[in-house]
Amino acid sequence: MSNIWCICIMVEQFVVDGPHAHLYDTANQSWVKLMNWQHGTMYLFFGISGIAIVAKTASKLVPVGVDHLSLSLALFVEGFLFYYHVHMRPPLDAHIHTLLLVAVFIGSACFMVEVFIKDNIVLELFGACMFILQGSWFYQIGFVLYPLRGPEWDLKMHDNIMFITMCFCWHLAVALLLVACTSSFVWFTVKRFSGKGRDIEIGMRNTSSKTSSQKALLEESDEE
Amino acid sequence: MSNIWCICIMVEQFVVDGPHAHLYDTANQSWVKLMNWQHGTMYLFFGISGIAIVAKTASKLVPVGVDHLSLSLALFVEGFLFYYHVHMRPPLDAHIHTLLLVAVFIGSACFMVEVFIKDNIVLELFGACMFILQGSWFYQIGFVLYPLRGPEWDLKMHDNIMFITMCFCWHLAVALLLVACTSSFVWFTVKRFSGKGRDIEIGMRNTSSKTSSQKALLEESDEE
Amino acid sequence: MSNIWCICIMVEQFVVDGPHAHLYDTANQSWVKLMNWQHGTMYLFFGISGIAIVAKTASKLVPVGVDHLSLSLALFVEGFLFYYHVHMRPPLDAHIHTLLLVAVFIGSACFMVEVFIKDNIVLELFGACMFILQGSWFYQIGFVLYPLRGPEWDLKMHDNIMFITMCFCWHLAVALLLVACTSSFVWFTVKRFSGKGRDIEIGMRNTSSKTSSQKALLEESDEE
Amino acid sequence: MSNIWCICIMVEQFVVDGPHAHLYDTANQSWVKLMNWQHGTMYLFFGISGIAIVAKTASKLVPVGVDHLSLSLALFVEGFLFYYHVHMRPPLDAHIHTLLLVAVFIGSACFMVEVFIKDNIVLELFGACMFILQGSWFYQIGFVLYPLRGPEWDLKMHDNIMFITMCFCWHLAVALLLVACTSSFVWFTVKRFSGKGRDIEIGMRNTSSKTSSQKALLEESDEE
Repeated sequence: MSNIWCICIMVEQFVVDGPHAHLYDTANQSWVKLMNWQHGTMYLFFGISGIAIVAKTASKLVPVGVDHLSLSLALFVEGFLFYYHVHMRPPLDAHIHTLLLVAVFIGSACFMVEVFIKDNIVLELFGACMFILQGSWFYQIGFVLYPLRGPEWDLKMHDNIMFITMCFCWHLAVALLLVACTSSFVWFTVKRFSGKGRDIEIGMRNTSSKTSSQKALLEESDEE
Repeated sequence: MSNIWCICIMVEQFVVDGPHAHLYDTANQSWVKLMNWQHGTMYLFFGISGIAIVAKTASKLVPVGVDHLSLSLALFVEGFLFYYHVHMRPPLDAHIHTLLLVAVFIGSACFMVEVFIKDNIVLELFGACMFILQGSWFYQIGFVLYPLRGPEWDLKMHDNIMFITMCFCWHLAVALLLVACTSSFVWFTVKRFSGKGRDIEIGMRNTSSKTSSQKALLEESDEE
Repeated sequence: MSNIWCICIMVEQFVVDGPHAHLYDTANQSWVKLMNWQHGTMYLFFGISGIAIVAKTASKLVPVGVDHLSLSLALFVEGFLFYYHVHMRPPLDAHIHTLLLVAVFIGSACFMVEVFIKDNIVLELFGACMFILQGSWFYQIGFVLYPLRGPEWDLKMHDNIMFITMCFCWHLAVALLLVACTSSFVWFTVKRFSGKGRDIEIGMRNTSSKTSSQKALLEESDEE
Repeated sequence: MSNIWCICIMVEQFVVDGPHAHLYDTANQSWVKLMNWQHGTMYLFFGISGIAIVAKTASKLVPVGVDHLSLSLALFVEGFLFYYHVHMRPPLDAHIHTLLLVAVFIGSACFMVEVFIKDNIVLELFGACMFILQGSWFYQIGFVLYPLRGPEWDLKMHDNIMFITMCFCWHLAVALLLVACTSSFVWFTVKRFSGKGRDIEIGMRNTSSKTSSQKALLEESDEE
């Protein structure tokens, strides 16, 4: 995973019209390709998040919750940079990016809560749902701002803003459906092909982590 | 429940002045009846919430909390669509809708908290209270914006805004009273007609779910 | 307590320049003394809070947390009505009321948290602190807007706003000091005049309620 | 620690161009050196926080959480005073101070959460990270607003605002790296030079405080 973000940053830097690691152009007294640098910064934090997940998997000494905290931070930084990106644009353009921020910040809050409440299956699926929503909304932004064919969208018409808000809710509904179908499918597949269905049930258990860890503790104390 | 929202969406689509499932009018280059489409979207999410509740009741494999999460999302989407509905209206009209949003978003937050804190009777009654407030406030909006008789309200007068804010608090007080009376009445009725009053007491128990589930665990470990 | 708010509402209604229970003046087509009605609404919610506390003390059937929830609601309604009160005033006047809202809403949030986290002594003292801050700030508002002697304050000067913000922090420091001194004094007094100092220690215990209630449960399960 | 803040306040008051404990200049009808007074107020709250930590360490009667609450309050007051500091400045100046507020308020929220969730190593390291970010960002503000050499920054150019936002994220990444390196270094050093490595492991334990305190309770109940 840390390789992927290294490659991403490299590509952003050294594509034909990239900044080639130059940050400030002293001749023109202006910043060079700030957009690419911002994308590089976003990749950097997702890279840090990847390293945290690897570290947590590799060693038991890494505190639990570091992986969720770093993912939450990565989403926060992404939203943070987008937020100051949006100023001084036409209304529809600003609005469509603001809706993206809703998905990004709710996702960030979701993973932040997971630092404290572990193994809650509803939270984890909801976080996944926010990632899918974010992805599908990026496509929607592309189709609205740079339509493949047909007339351009009127970026100042109020009805367009109303429609896009509604469209965001449809994307959310589709993301919920997708997550529900996928998790059901995974559950049934795992159950069928697994001889011992019992462990899976535990994996998809309804109980929160707290009660189960208490149970574990209680069993430990019983054993003593 | 899923039947009801299907019927609702159908009615919104195929009433005499509805959009009849047409979304974009290419002749006039405008959206067709966006208002009806937005209402349909709101019903859709309450429908999803209904399906989640049915699924949870039918099967033990559905994770606990899905029903509250979906209800919270439905209220969030309702508030979200209303929020972008309100722009560019006269002050009193915007204000009276903003007050509705207060009830909707507090209700949404309340159900979101219930995903994590289960069986808290105070939270559940407060959520019910927010639903009643929302309903009674819809009537209030109707009576203010389209008065049955008498003069129209001056939509720009500051005193009217002050009165409406106060009026919202009165609705809240009435909703609290209603919930308090209903829950007391239900409690006494159930107690009288039930031979074994003890189970009811457990249903109305003062303790939070956490302590009771711990008690259950401790009893389990004692039995072992 | 419920007597006090009844009297308060009566006084507000029937003082010489009060509304005398008239809400709308059809002759002038204007609302009668909205300010007094708003104060009456605030007292009403503190009254509801008082009833909830009495009910909780009287009967064990009232769910735990109702008293804190109603107090939190009363503070929320107070802040809510003040918030729409503040519009269209000179800068310093608006700012000094906004600072009051900070104390009111933090207090409301504090009691809302207490619905879920019970018997946390730090939270309770902090809530008391917010009440003291609110009270002392009301005096400060009085002295700034209606100075007893000397020149009037310039309501548009930016330095005055800076000073008032700082002054709010001093009030907070004094409130913290007062609560710290009072709670220490109460603790020492109770300890000296009580033969059995041990119970007091439990009252001022360092542990959070959760561990102590668990302990109680554990002891119960041991007895069984 | 309480000595340090006393000295700080004294220095701010009695430097050559300080207010010398004069607050209001009746001759000019203006406040004397409000900036120094504001800094004094900030030091005062960090002083209160220091006293709370000393009191908590000295006596077991001080409730757990008072130290974190007072530190959270100190950061809140710092951010609160800065927030009203920022009005009516050039865009870049206001923006660079707003970014500081992000670090300050996230730090304050972090310590507020620690009042309730104790001994969570991730939270504590994240709080430390916010302190480092705040410190390094103060240097950045200094270098931007008062550059040592070279041309002054254009305080109204939008590209500069974009760059500074990105720069804040880089500071955050460096702070995360620093905290990760330091805590790893401390952990390995303590482990090597300590004969009994086991206690250290407990100090760096992965479990949250809740489970460990429950474990302690359970062991107690077993002993009984």
